[in-house]
Amino acid sequence: MNVLSRVAGAAVWVVDVGVGVEINPAGVGSTTGAAGSGAVFRVRKVRPGTADMTRGPAMSREEAERALDVGWSVAMEMIDSGIRLLALGEMGIGNTTAAAAVAAALTGWPEGDLVGLGTGIDPVRRQKKLQAVRRALVVNRPDSSDAVDVLSKVGGLEMAGLAGAALAGAARRVPVLMDGFIASAAVLAAVHIDPRALPYMFASHRSVEPGHGRILRWLGREPLFDLDLRLGEGTGAVLAMPMMEAAARILDEMATFEEAGVSDAED
Amino acid sequence: MNVLSRVAGAAVWVVDVGVGVEINPAGVGSTTGAAGSGAVFRVRKVRPGTADMTRGPAMSREEAERALDVGWSVAMEMIDSGIRLLALGEMGIGNTTAAAAVAAALTGWPEGDLVGLGTGIDPVRRQKKLQAVRRALVVNRPDSSDAVDVLSKVGGLEMAGLAGAALAGAARRVPVLMDGFIASAAVLAAVHIDPRALPYMFASHRSVEPGHGRILRWLGREPLFDLDLRLGEGTGAVLAMPMMEAAARILDEMATFEEAGVSDAED
Repeated sequence: MNVLSRVAGAAVWVVDVGVGVEINPAGVGSTTGAAGSGAVFRVRKVRPGTADMTRGPAMSREEAERALDVGWSVAMEMIDSGIRLLALGEMGIGNTTAAAAVAAALTGWPEGDLVGLGTGIDPVRRQKKLQAVRRALVVNRPDSSDAVDVLSKVGGLEMAGLAGAALAGAARRVPVLMDGFIASAAVLAAVHIDPRALPYMFASHRSVEPGHGRILRWLGREPLFDLDLRLGEGTGAVLAMPMMEAAARILDEMATFEEAGVSDAED
Repeated sequence: MNVLSRVAGAAVWVVDVGVGVEINPAGVGSTTGAAGSGAVFRVRKVRPGTADMTRGPAMSREEAERALDVGWSVAMEMIDSGIRLLALGEMGIGNTTAAAAVAAALTGWPEGDLVGLGTGIDPVRRQKKLQAVRRALVVNRPDSSDAVDVLSKVGGLEMAGLAGAALAGAARRVPVLMDGFIASAAVLAAVHIDPRALPYMFASHRSVEPGHGRILRWLGREPLFDLDLRLGEGTGAVLAMPMMEAAARILDEMATFEEAGVSDAED
């Protein structure tokens, strides 16, 4: 993600909304290639990891609201700093499970259509993952008409944070690029919270997770490319940034055929 | 093309290999948006337009060889100036017809699979275009084992020039990004001239021209995106430049899981 952001000329903002361990931002990146990336860190941990959603809610409603607020306020800070295009990304192992549960709860789609192979599990583990999603929905009975209830019961802190960031982008008329399945599930929750956010949401790629294409179709978005990515972290979104810039600059800077005095195909 | 090249940080080199009228490079762009683009112009006209290929060869073999040499030598000049990624593009009305004839002559594919709607003609004109391709092949009998013969009889000066540029890129180990149908037909001719060029050829997009996907499959190349482009000029190729840079920099700059001490999915 750091490498791809350098190519795109994008700033990386890393927000700890709820990592299970303590993170010292000064030490992050010493061995991961982030050193010297110039990434901005914000430690805004709501709680150290979520609870097991197959036994009860992942977090309280108040915690979900605080995570939404973290995303909202950090995105506002980014926009205030001059950023004019947001790309949503996340890191986490196991969060395609929660994303599938969120999408199923909000839409009523069959869980089997939304559960994929994540980081590369085998079919037996996929079956366990599917059972976990079904069990979480049965145990928690999230209210499909209340996206905050869904996020708190079967979601994750990163998804709530991303939903808040998406709403902030829309509120400030800043376009928001979705990344893969998890970021798109967060946007699905955001537009359930406020449908006026939808026009500001843009697709980047379509990942190999089967639920991703379904969410994009529900949102009415055609992905710009399909490179079999399954990394997350916002990598697909940042790869799409030059295309977004190209589209905007074509509108701003290009002479039309009429302005250039070129006849059209019919002439 | 000028706008998209600015986004990609690419230099535009415009080469007149055979435009039908005289071009004064100093005056080009005054109304077309090219002014101030910093484009480099090279006037290396081989002849003012090709002949009607439905009545005889489009050009002589010697002219095709000169056009190949124009592309080769301008590409060498570009590489000598420090350019490390070439994107092929062209301008012209009617050149999807010649590109279809070149692809059909080299591969033996049915002309009907290669003739599309170009800049947006209607089905009746497409039928006339198909007849023109068939007639050109019958009248000229290009030798499928001799790509220079094919280019001279049913090709165009721009395709011969682009084929020469592609061969120069390969000779200098500089990757070459194909654009749409016409640039890809030129690359098809180039790899028939020298198959060692193939590993240096990269796909960018797949255009709406039906023959384009066929050529890319023949070359063994998967397009990076498919945005229903039909503009030419190298626009799709230059849109792919940030992705090419991203791929190269991931290889160069990214820490591996092993280097970063991250355990893999199996652990």
